[in-house]
Amino acid sequence: MSCDFLALAQPGVQKLSPYVPGKPVDELARELNLDPAGIVKLASNENPLGPSPKALEAIRGELAELTRYPDGNGFELKRRLAERCGVSTAQVTLGNGSNDILELVARAYLAPGLNAVFSEHAFAVYPIVTQAVGAQGKVVPARDYGHDLEAMLAAIDEQTRVVFVANPNNPTGTWFGPQTLADFLARVPERVLVVLDEAYIEYAEGDELPDGLDYLAQYPNLLVSRTFSKAYGLAGLRVGYGLSSVQVADVLNRVRQPFNVNSLALAAACAALDDAEYLAESRRVNDAGMLQLEEGFRGLGLKWIPSKGNFIAVDFGRDAAPINQALLQAGVIVRPVAGYGMPTFLRVSIGTQAENARFLEVLRQVLARG
Amino acid sequence: MSCDFLALAQPGVQKLSPYVPGKPVDELARELNLDPAGIVKLASNENPLGPSPKALEAIRGELAELTRYPDGNGFELKRRLAERCGVSTAQVTLGNGSNDILELVARAYLAPGLNAVFSEHAFAVYPIVTQAVGAQGKVVPARDYGHDLEAMLAAIDEQTRVVFVANPNNPTGTWFGPQTLADFLARVPERVLVVLDEAYIEYAEGDELPDGLDYLAQYPNLLVSRTFSKAYGLAGLRVGYGLSSVQVADVLNRVRQPFNVNSLALAAACAALDDAEYLAESRRVNDAGMLQLEEGFRGLGLKWIPSKGNFIAVDFGRDAAPINQALLQAGVIVRPVAGYGMPTFLRVSIGTQAENARFLEVLRQVLARG
Repeated sequence: MSCDFLALAQPGVQKLSPYVPGKPVDELARELNLDPAGIVKLASNENPLGPSPKALEAIRGELAELTRYPDGNGFELKRRLAERCGVSTAQVTLGNGSNDILELVARAYLAPGLNAVFSEHAFAVYPIVTQAVGAQGKVVPARDYGHDLEAMLAAIDEQTRVVFVANPNNPTGTWFGPQTLADFLARVPERVLVVLDEAYIEYAEGDELPDGLDYLAQYPNLLVSRTFSKAYGLAGLRVGYGLSSVQVADVLNRVRQPFNVNSLALAAACAALDDAEYLAESRRVNDAGMLQLEEGFRGLGLKWIPSKGNFIAVDFGRDAAPINQALLQAGVIVRPVAGYGMPTFLRVSIGTQAENARFLEVLRQVLARG
Repeated sequence: MSCDFLALAQPGVQKLSPYVPGKPVDELARELNLDPAGIVKLASNENPLGPSPKALEAIRGELAELTRYPDGNGFELKRRLAERCGVSTAQVTLGNGSNDILELVARAYLAPGLNAVFSEHAFAVYPIVTQAVGAQGKVVPARDYGHDLEAMLAAIDEQTRVVFVANPNNPTGTWFGPQTLADFLARVPERVLVVLDEAYIEYAEGDELPDGLDYLAQYPNLLVSRTFSKAYGLAGLRVGYGLSSVQVADVLNRVRQPFNVNSLALAAACAALDDAEYLAESRRVNDAGMLQLEEGFRGLGLKWIPSKGNFIAVDFGRDAAPINQALLQAGVIVRPVAGYGMPTFLRVSIGTQAENARFLEVLRQVLARG
């Protein structure tokens, strides 16, 4: 008779339900015996352009060195990020995707007896990293699917150490403006770390969203997390970053694994940062695709949540699971968001013009069947 | 006046000293204004062969898909590892290097009030991951620089949840045989997870070391951790794995980040597993280099610890720091191990024939100067 190694795990870990990712193309192909080449995946907010040629070139230049460990300090990428973002390198924490940054925050600042505040319909990783360290997640009801920052402020108590705020938010695409952020930051107690998740900010820059970096100097309790997985097109490589006060960055850098970011990711991210053309094209394709999907939804009589991300949540007004199943059968992968408390919605990532058209056509057929 | 975000961090985190990696070639080049091409790095137990051509080919085949997230389940790599290792895929946990596996264990099974047992002169990551979650590390004095498994058994108490055991051990290169492991496993309480770190096992297979996998079926409290960073030559990509009971793997897979292993690492590891030629050449070069260094040390009148790894700890009988400094000045990077309680030693990774010769020649000159 052996021991129960689930019962021996930490209480927070025992109750952990892992993150459910978008279904990979290969997995659907295996399950339904479909040709992977014919499958359209609009499920993981991935960049439909394919990788930046400059990033690929940088990767090829690093391949001969793969037997070497990565630079654990990420010297060159930190230097470039610091320059680009107008901070010092000591304010940068590199992560194995921005998921890593979120987790580092939880491991450094949360524990049983403490809590983190976040919104209903917010990114699933906030509750997961909170739960994993045995802290309490305080979920604040959303307003019109977006963050109710007033209510989030009211939810902060003596045991709150972290507030997760996403702008724009995934999976809803909702956002708030500069004044709203400024008012919020001014009122959060200074001992509470505000994690401003800007994973999608590059799709919204110049719109009515604030740039979190503008508030770093004033708020030592602000951390802005960003990623190369979206507009920079490097999801497969895993690289994100946090920008914060030097002290918070020092703490997070103590907690992170010494080689948390791989060497190809470091090189590719440096190159991607310099590829302004790719970034502009990502934005252009996304803006056009967003209009295309909105127009398609309008034509089908569907409602949606206006979005500043590279995705859009569409509302079918009834259980969306059968619609999702029918889409899968036709080789179209989108994201069910029942787990986000949105069972009548599906979240659709913006694809290429052709991918969007294929999705809309299949959706039209599925809905026509009833 | 802002808050102290070091004081707000978890107690274990506050006292954390990050892992000190081997000095990167570029860093030394910057510091001493040296030509990177002339620097020999034998500091991080890296494979001197350069990457497996098959792994590189697999990477090139994945580049077009970099905008996609990796397969979070690592389906194909798990399938191949399970087949190769004679376990089920449900027994496999993939890690961002085996460092990730060690950390997952700590996060799942350790906490304040609990402890982990490990040996003096053992891998620095054991105390770090233990400290990071606020647990106590019980360090057991080594015997002849190797694990004293009897003393480690005696150190296990009611609060012990994990024992870290490395075979061979880094940085000493020491090892133990099958009977020793069998006796140890039979006597460890079944509620204590034994983490058998076999990062270097591929350099020692067929020697007098046990294969940890042979004990998995009998011991649900055994986890064997391995890596693609050493004999498989993929340190830059970050991929390792744990093999354990299904229950332990289930727990670790709940804790790990959903995309902890990048897509190029997944593809390259699959290819590397199949590249028997590369693995054999890694072993051959290592065996020859070990003899070369031992012979060199003998000629210089130096003592060393016999090693089954891809590195060797050489004893200068006096503070090795000045010798390390002199080697750095000459463009040779090896590893000081004062932090491992071995201030008179330097750890030297086995390089190519030419790298080993260069190191030995520079060392001869340094020692001749006194």
